[in-house]
Amino acid sequence: MKIVVDGMGGDHAPLELVKGAVEASALTEHQIILVGDESKINSELEKYKYNKEKITVVHASEVISNEDAPVKAVRTKLDSSMVKGINMVKNGEADLFVSAGNTGAIMAAGLFILGRIQGIDRPAIASTYPILGNGGVSLLVDSGANSECKPNNLLEFATMGSIYMEKVLNIKEPTVGLVNIGTEETKGTTVLKATYELLSKSKLRFVGNVEAREIPKGACDVLVCDGFVGNIILKLTEGLAMSILKLLKNKFTSGMIPKMGALLLAGKLKELKSEFDYSEYGGAPILGVKGALVKMHGSSNATAVKNTILKGIPYAETNVVQMIQNSVLELEEIIISE
Amino acid sequence: MKIVVDGMGGDHAPLELVKGAVEASALTEHQIILVGDESKINSELEKYKYNKEKITVVHASEVISNEDAPVKAVRTKLDSSMVKGINMVKNGEADLFVSAGNTGAIMAAGLFILGRIQGIDRPAIASTYPILGNGGVSLLVDSGANSECKPNNLLEFATMGSIYMEKVLNIKEPTVGLVNIGTEETKGTTVLKATYELLSKSKLRFVGNVEAREIPKGACDVLVCDGFVGNIILKLTEGLAMSILKLLKNKFTSGMIPKMGALLLAGKLKELKSEFDYSEYGGAPILGVKGALVKMHGSSNATAVKNTILKGIPYAETNVVQMIQNSVLELEEIIISE
Repeated sequence: MKIVVDGMGGDHAPLELVKGAVEASALTEHQIILVGDESKINSELEKYKYNKEKITVVHASEVISNEDAPVKAVRTKLDSSMVKGINMVKNGEADLFVSAGNTGAIMAAGLFILGRIQGIDRPAIASTYPILGNGGVSLLVDSGANSECKPNNLLEFATMGSIYMEKVLNIKEPTVGLVNIGTEETKGTTVLKATYELLSKSKLRFVGNVEAREIPKGACDVLVCDGFVGNIILKLTEGLAMSILKLLKNKFTSGMIPKMGALLLAGKLKELKSEFDYSEYGGAPILGVKGALVKMHGSSNATAVKNTILKGIPYAETNVVQMIQNSVLELEEIIISE
Repeated sequence: MKIVVDGMGGDHAPLELVKGAVEASALTEHQIILVGDESKINSELEKYKYNKEKITVVHASEVISNEDAPVKAVRTKLDSSMVKGINMVKNGEADLFVSAGNTGAIMAAGLFILGRIQGIDRPAIASTYPILGNGGVSLLVDSGANSECKPNNLLEFATMGSIYMEKVLNIKEPTVGLVNIGTEETKGTTVLKATYELLSKSKLRFVGNVEAREIPKGACDVLVCDGFVGNIILKLTEGLAMSILKLLKNKFTSGMIPKMGALLLAGKLKELKSEFDYSEYGGAPILGVKGALVKMHGSSNATAVKNTILKGIPYAETNVVQMIQNSVLELEEIIISE
């Protein structure tokens, strides 16, 4: 299998991307292709010892930045690392593309270059959400691609998320919950009420509405919501966890006795921090496009890059794209029967 | 001034409601009226020493529970503690009503009995959001009353929230932020883009879009969003904070050395817990109805009840309702000029 890494996307490119690729390469038999500015990438690669047969570089003269307007960038920067990398997946030269770059551009490039899986109206970003103290994750779909959704979109997210959870993350018969402001089926917006009905009729293991309060406890395996709500959930969690850790640190270093206590708890505090460390969890697949694309956090470090590559392999190996396509026919029957 | 307390609303009624009313009464010169089942409330009151001239009981034979359908309950349970208490505000027999009961029913009773402030399309719930480590709060409007909003509703929330923040919470020239999934003005749904324009034209101190990641740090004084997103923010924060505190406790009590460390940090851990303790912050006013109604958390204990009563007094004393009405004319000019 061949894995393409966008060497130029993200806040710490190419440094951390190259380092992460080297670290991943030592742990997998698969081929890694770094796409981007050849001279910059090579000068980073020179810092490390690695098997030169397992990491190759493909030159791309352009970069799509976070400031670029996604659609325009994808249409015009044809020699960018992102467009070039995703084209390699399209042409069968690679099986998986990972990037820490502009999320909107990855979505747009996925749609324009690979295209949607037949019958899927809206591809979505599926992010893992850590269940605290448990080591497990829920899958949050959509976590940012589609701000406004129709009931059939949310049904598609639930279906794609369930397939990914079962086939890639090995959760048998994953449960599906609809993120809502109350558990009763009459709660929420018009769209959510209609989605509740669709999900009830589906063959998915639908457990009903899930309140935000229950999400950190691992209310269900697949959390379904529109990309606006998903993005709020993901970013609020990140912001709140960081604020709490910072506050803990401040409180525990003020005064002699707390300092001594914090010293005794150092190992446990580190464990707590790692629970929130997205770099451990790998990236977020773009579900619904005809190929395996994985989006990493923009500020990914080498560990995050390494984990995204390694955890992306089973996604490309299992035929999730084909399985999603097979499931679409069934969805259409549910939607039409409404 | 007279404050009506719904003695029957909430998970711990009447016990904690009565206890909180007694505690508040010791700290204020104002009159407190407990509405509800006279015999139950009196048998709770008998447990305490209090100034009998400052706490009176008004009998109500019915209770609106959390299971009741709000509109129907308000229309039919005319002798419920909630309907009776809000009628006392309408009739000038009281200046403030506080309840830990069914949120939908408080909203419905506010609308039917008191009515909307002229020119306000949708009343909203304004909840305080703690800024960690700072002691301050942001005001989240709407935090649950209106799942689907138009731009003019959000402009109203911003205006009402700013007035409350300035007049009741004493924040001069409060800043207003629109909760969104990116800071650029082109981000988010169609409704949010139009709201951004309206807020820009208003006389409010609009600071632009605010990402969820920034909320716990105190991004601005008034956080504007629809009630769906507001409810997700509030409940996710509550759930995540509780999960983290639980995880800390588990980690800090496993093993001899961590236990010793936790002992040394006991005071600091207690401080951390109190940062998230909603009972310290008082309740959430229902802004936009013609009278001062404050909704408490359903599981409020006596401390929460006491604080809601005491912090509700400046709300009833300052003429926020009149100020909101005066500001509406200006809003209409902004909306029409669109």
